[in-house]
Amino acid sequence: MVIVMNDRATDKDVELVTGNLTRMGLGVHVSRGAERVIIGVIGDVRKVSPEIVESYPGVERAVRILEPYKLASRKVRSTPTVVDCCGVQVGGREVVLIAGPCSVENLSMTLETARAARSGGAAMLRGGAFKPRSSPYSFQGLGLEGLEILAQARGETDLPVVTEVMAPEQVEIVAAHADMLQIGARNMQNFNLLQEVGRQRKPVMLKRGMMASVDEWLQAAEYVLAYGNMQVVLCERGIRTFETQTRFTLDLSAVPVVKKLTHLPVIVDPCHGTGKRDLVAPMAMAAVAAGADGIIIEAHPDPETALSDGPQSLRLEQISGLSASLSHIAAAIGRCMHPALPQGSLSRPQACPKPAQMVAPTQDSGVRGC
Amino acid sequence: MVIVMNDRATDKDVELVTGNLTRMGLGVHVSRGAERVIIGVIGDVRKVSPEIVESYPGVERAVRILEPYKLASRKVRSTPTVVDCCGVQVGGREVVLIAGPCSVENLSMTLETARAARSGGAAMLRGGAFKPRSSPYSFQGLGLEGLEILAQARGETDLPVVTEVMAPEQVEIVAAHADMLQIGARNMQNFNLLQEVGRQRKPVMLKRGMMASVDEWLQAAEYVLAYGNMQVVLCERGIRTFETQTRFTLDLSAVPVVKKLTHLPVIVDPCHGTGKRDLVAPMAMAAVAAGADGIIIEAHPDPETALSDGPQSLRLEQISGLSASLSHIAAAIGRCMHPALPQGSLSRPQACPKPAQMVAPTQDSGVRGC
Amino acid sequence: MVIVMNDRATDKDVELVTGNLTRMGLGVHVSRGAERVIIGVIGDVRKVSPEIVESYPGVERAVRILEPYKLASRKVRSTPTVVDCCGVQVGGREVVLIAGPCSVENLSMTLETARAARSGGAAMLRGGAFKPRSSPYSFQGLGLEGLEILAQARGETDLPVVTEVMAPEQVEIVAAHADMLQIGARNMQNFNLLQEVGRQRKPVMLKRGMMASVDEWLQAAEYVLAYGNMQVVLCERGIRTFETQTRFTLDLSAVPVVKKLTHLPVIVDPCHGTGKRDLVAPMAMAAVAAGADGIIIEAHPDPETALSDGPQSLRLEQISGLSASLSHIAAAIGRCMHPALPQGSLSRPQACPKPAQMVAPTQDSGVRGC
Amino acid sequence: MVIVMNDRATDKDVELVTGNLTRMGLGVHVSRGAERVIIGVIGDVRKVSPEIVESYPGVERAVRILEPYKLASRKVRSTPTVVDCCGVQVGGREVVLIAGPCSVENLSMTLETARAARSGGAAMLRGGAFKPRSSPYSFQGLGLEGLEILAQARGETDLPVVTEVMAPEQVEIVAAHADMLQIGARNMQNFNLLQEVGRQRKPVMLKRGMMASVDEWLQAAEYVLAYGNMQVVLCERGIRTFETQTRFTLDLSAVPVVKKLTHLPVIVDPCHGTGKRDLVAPMAMAAVAAGADGIIIEAHPDPETALSDGPQSLRLEQISGLSASLSHIAAAIGRCMHPALPQGSLSRPQACPKPAQMVAPTQDSGVRGC
Repeated sequence: MVIVMNDRATDKDVELVTGNLTRMGLGVHVSRGAERVIIGVIGDVRKVSPEIVESYPGVERAVRILEPYKLASRKVRSTPTVVDCCGVQVGGREVVLIAGPCSVENLSMTLETARAARSGGAAMLRGGAFKPRSSPYSFQGLGLEGLEILAQARGETDLPVVTEVMAPEQVEIVAAHADMLQIGARNMQNFNLLQEVGRQRKPVMLKRGMMASVDEWLQAAEYVLAYGNMQVVLCERGIRTFETQTRFTLDLSAVPVVKKLTHLPVIVDPCHGTGKRDLVAPMAMAAVAAGADGIIIEAHPDPETALSDGPQSLRLEQISGLSASLSHIAAAIGRCMHPALPQGSLSRPQACPKPAQMVAPTQDSGVRGC
Repeated sequence: MVIVMNDRATDKDVELVTGNLTRMGLGVHVSRGAERVIIGVIGDVRKVSPEIVESYPGVERAVRILEPYKLASRKVRSTPTVVDCCGVQVGGREVVLIAGPCSVENLSMTLETARAARSGGAAMLRGGAFKPRSSPYSFQGLGLEGLEILAQARGETDLPVVTEVMAPEQVEIVAAHADMLQIGARNMQNFNLLQEVGRQRKPVMLKRGMMASVDEWLQAAEYVLAYGNMQVVLCERGIRTFETQTRFTLDLSAVPVVKKLTHLPVIVDPCHGTGKRDLVAPMAMAAVAAGADGIIIEAHPDPETALSDGPQSLRLEQISGLSASLSHIAAAIGRCMHPALPQGSLSRPQACPKPAQMVAPTQDSGVRGC
Repeated sequence: MVIVMNDRATDKDVELVTGNLTRMGLGVHVSRGAERVIIGVIGDVRKVSPEIVESYPGVERAVRILEPYKLASRKVRSTPTVVDCCGVQVGGREVVLIAGPCSVENLSMTLETARAARSGGAAMLRGGAFKPRSSPYSFQGLGLEGLEILAQARGETDLPVVTEVMAPEQVEIVAAHADMLQIGARNMQNFNLLQEVGRQRKPVMLKRGMMASVDEWLQAAEYVLAYGNMQVVLCERGIRTFETQTRFTLDLSAVPVVKKLTHLPVIVDPCHGTGKRDLVAPMAMAAVAAGADGIIIEAHPDPETALSDGPQSLRLEQISGLSASLSHIAAAIGRCMHPALPQGSLSRPQACPKPAQMVAPTQDSGVRGC
Repeated sequence: MVIVMNDRATDKDVELVTGNLTRMGLGVHVSRGAERVIIGVIGDVRKVSPEIVESYPGVERAVRILEPYKLASRKVRSTPTVVDCCGVQVGGREVVLIAGPCSVENLSMTLETARAARSGGAAMLRGGAFKPRSSPYSFQGLGLEGLEILAQARGETDLPVVTEVMAPEQVEIVAAHADMLQIGARNMQNFNLLQEVGRQRKPVMLKRGMMASVDEWLQAAEYVLAYGNMQVVLCERGIRTFETQTRFTLDLSAVPVVKKLTHLPVIVDPCHGTGKRDLVAPMAMAAVAAGADGIIIEAHPDPETALSDGPQSLRLEQISGLSASLSHIAAAIGRCMHPALPQGSLSRPQACPKPAQMVAPTQDSGVRGC
């Protein structure tokens, strides 16, 4: 942190600042220029907020130089983290497509969607059992029954399952059934929940809050990392702006920004980000072109009757077309899709020859259900 | 809901829409105009989203006429709700000031602040025991110890206590110690938490999410009401915009907007809303002028060393000046502050002669600790 | 400006920075701390953008300490500027109400509105002759004919007139007819227009762009000041956010923020800021409570048939009620309204006893038409 | 437009609405449902604002069904408009790269940049002669001298030139020197300027305002079209949001949204949209993947000393790399770059075999300077 005193600051003001910082165990370096005194602060300043320091008498400005997160930072770990979810690797050279219904409505539609996802080229299955809904009168999800249906769909299709967990007390049961735990946008700063998913060992997909800055998003990831779980996948899903043509504004520039700041993988959700089926394919392609490690979409056998998010869900027959389009974009930037041969085969050949510099995926040998 | 078909819609398209709605138990009224077919929908359309209907073939636009909330609506209850918290009434003719530290740091600073709040004219004490913090490395609050300190401060000053609850499993313990439960901005759409505070009987203060529209805010209130707790106080605390001179943009127009839509009381938090001590007094006065039922502020014996939110906390000696300023504004609009005589007296005379049309405060006789 | 080099910066990197700044005529002060080099820059750094400096190799962060404006800054002129418009002083102890139709539609409705403004307590008349409209198919204003109608209304009511100027080539004709020139929100960064109104001598009302930060707003004012016109009144009129209950979000915190940064007066437009008639009075009162020097509103004899902005225009009979409400708020904060006695009298007694510290209003003796 | 009356509306309320609309020459169709009256309005309702109608007594909601623009709408012209600028076609199957300095600083750097643009694969040259700057103390452009330098660069490289025009009185001189006229983001609603460029015949590039909705952007385009100039290229350049990691938030979803609503071509400016050189390539690739018809970038021989926008300008040697990357993305979606062979050759072969359904480019035979 660098602190700039104003031009009326007295020696006493300077001493108040340096004294307080020293008492907090930080080092200070005072530089007296022609017009102003500048104080450099040395040590772990993460616990000192610039706003606090700026409220001291005589302080003009306090600027944090280091990011407010540590384990999530590229400065701490320069090689990209590859999150392994039952053999599907997110953050490596391959781009993954995750597909499935917004809500698990019943066994039959879930199985039908899972099969279409599998044959359409998806690497993982998504589906909501616990559903956060703006209105208390909307369908709230099947809960435990939904988790069991998802497990059954995985059994049949061999697709690892990602599903949302909404409250700390649900973490254990969700982790027992699913392969990756999703934190929804509205819970991005539900810190008790972040701590709880940080304490267990399944990979976590952390959606960006619709009003969260990139800094806050990475600090939310830091919660999970700090509690011991290093397997975090970030997911951009649109931020709230004044524009009403789309449900949210998909912030694709967040993809290269985040790639530069952190070693964690980042995927994109073009369905929630736009709210309109027609925009899913162009924005998914754009996301891969921008460097996203994966795409997560909603699909439904009959979107018109879906209990949630119908307007932004793809029809099942659209999955394979999207998958093919993404393959072309991936190839254009020197990546490929995983799995490479989705034509009904349950085997997933590794089409991308792994380059030498690829990081070895973290072993997650104890994962149940894959 | 009114559904406008597009100019290429076929009879089959119209039938698909009316058939689906009828199966959901709704009535339809089809009107064939010169150019377009318009379908009026009758019944409780809260569970049907306009976006879903707009994704049907042939539909140009679907417009919800009723608000997506019911118990919170002025249409269901036209008289204002007065929330009674241990004799302090929020939402009546009197304007209340709630003051206290951002975080409960220890017994001594809490008592000192509570006494200053009391003598400065505050009607209630605020203070954080469980603290939501953006960074896992920031002070996270004293937890249970903090709750006990707050109860002790209430015992000495007779000020009812409001404090934040962050997770469903904390509701019971917080409700056992505090007189009003605060849902923080970042938890406004933590639906499991909303349900849990809806199930208990202490009053709830629901802060507006920094990214929440007024509609979403009232739907969040609807969760609490729908689970049985009608004692909800809304709190505007700033929304996120592009402006960086203030920490958030305090949306004071939300006060008259909300007053028109709902019968619930609404208060304003000018400390979080601006992030700067200098702006607290003018924005608090503006809030009362705009019709707010109360003001909640942060105060600290030594803001420079506060563990959180120091820059936006008032000094203790500023409370009474703010209180006096608010009294003048309240008088200018025909209201008054409660309590009327804060000069060290523990009795709180009712200075506002209650007009005949005032709603009788809901009895909350069983509240513990007052 | 303070420049913080990163921890990998070489001596050559430091020399590149200091060399470039020195060549621009700026002084530098290099401080080598334990971990980083910090460079203080001395002189007029307004022409150097921090973003430019941050793009130099080895630079971690460049922070501007001084505001990017000079003549508008409180640091250059600490006493408030009082703008005198034909004897109506904006920015002194008195609060002014400016009222009139959005568009000048014809002579009759303009006279009727001007008379109602006069008797209702307004100090100035507003009205649009040149109208910026989002759609080319909307009513575009009467142009020169509108200016002449406004002049006629001034002749009858003795109210100074403020009206919008939309293009550099209109400045001369508008200045010949009106007493204050308004720059609309959509033209806040129309720099050619700002220069042109800066070159003439009538006072200028500068509306904040709906997307403009406070910094950009004050830089826009700086254009006018820098071209020689020191008579600038700022006008907050709402910024664009995600909230749709109001047309814009009126940023009242901008009032005390701006008061701290600049000596220029600031008024508030609650009609455009909210877009709804019902919200005008509460937000106008809130604005005065927050410290605004005036309120500008739209009024119309028959808002239902207005050619523009009907939904947010007051009915004529509402003006005096608003005026009375504002008087009460003004009194509550130690100010008063101008004129004090609006009951049909053309004389305007100075009700506020001028305190000794009041700045003498700038003489504007040559103004035509008052 | 469809008007929904509220449940307390009287027959007189309905008559007021229908009477007013009929007097405006519109047809009405009244439908009386079980609970409410619904009024369908027939005819050109572009001049009637829903907000006006909603302010009538008894009206619950008024909904515009048609877009507020006409000539710009896909409903009026379903085939894409291909804007021809001296043989470079924007909006066809080929994707164009436009490159050049932010500001024309002098002849030498402009020629050097133009040559690099040419050999790097750009189809057009950009460069600012009249510069809109937030601060009056920043470099304001070379003006006429800049225009002449641009013309000289075109003479040498054969690249058509696009440059900004800032005021109505500049239109003639800019049109005499340049091949395409740019309207900057801050002037998107400078309606006098839009009318003026609508009256001349050079193609126009209309940047989206940083706070403009897509609807307002297309209405701004409508101004140009309505005044007779059908050669409009839209340019997305980032909107303002709360995120500060990027200068603006590039709204790539606007590309497919706009493509669906209008027949006009749309290009993307990733330099202004992000403000950071490192983000230009990924966002340019993403833009092409999303369907953009072109990319406009800033380049400079020595960005560190650029007089404006240095941090977001590419180095000259980066142009050809970007161009190659874009070619791969274009190929992945079945398009190609124009020109196909940029290796120093002045001939531009048409690499994309024109499909049969391609629209014939509008002839612009009289254009000077190509």
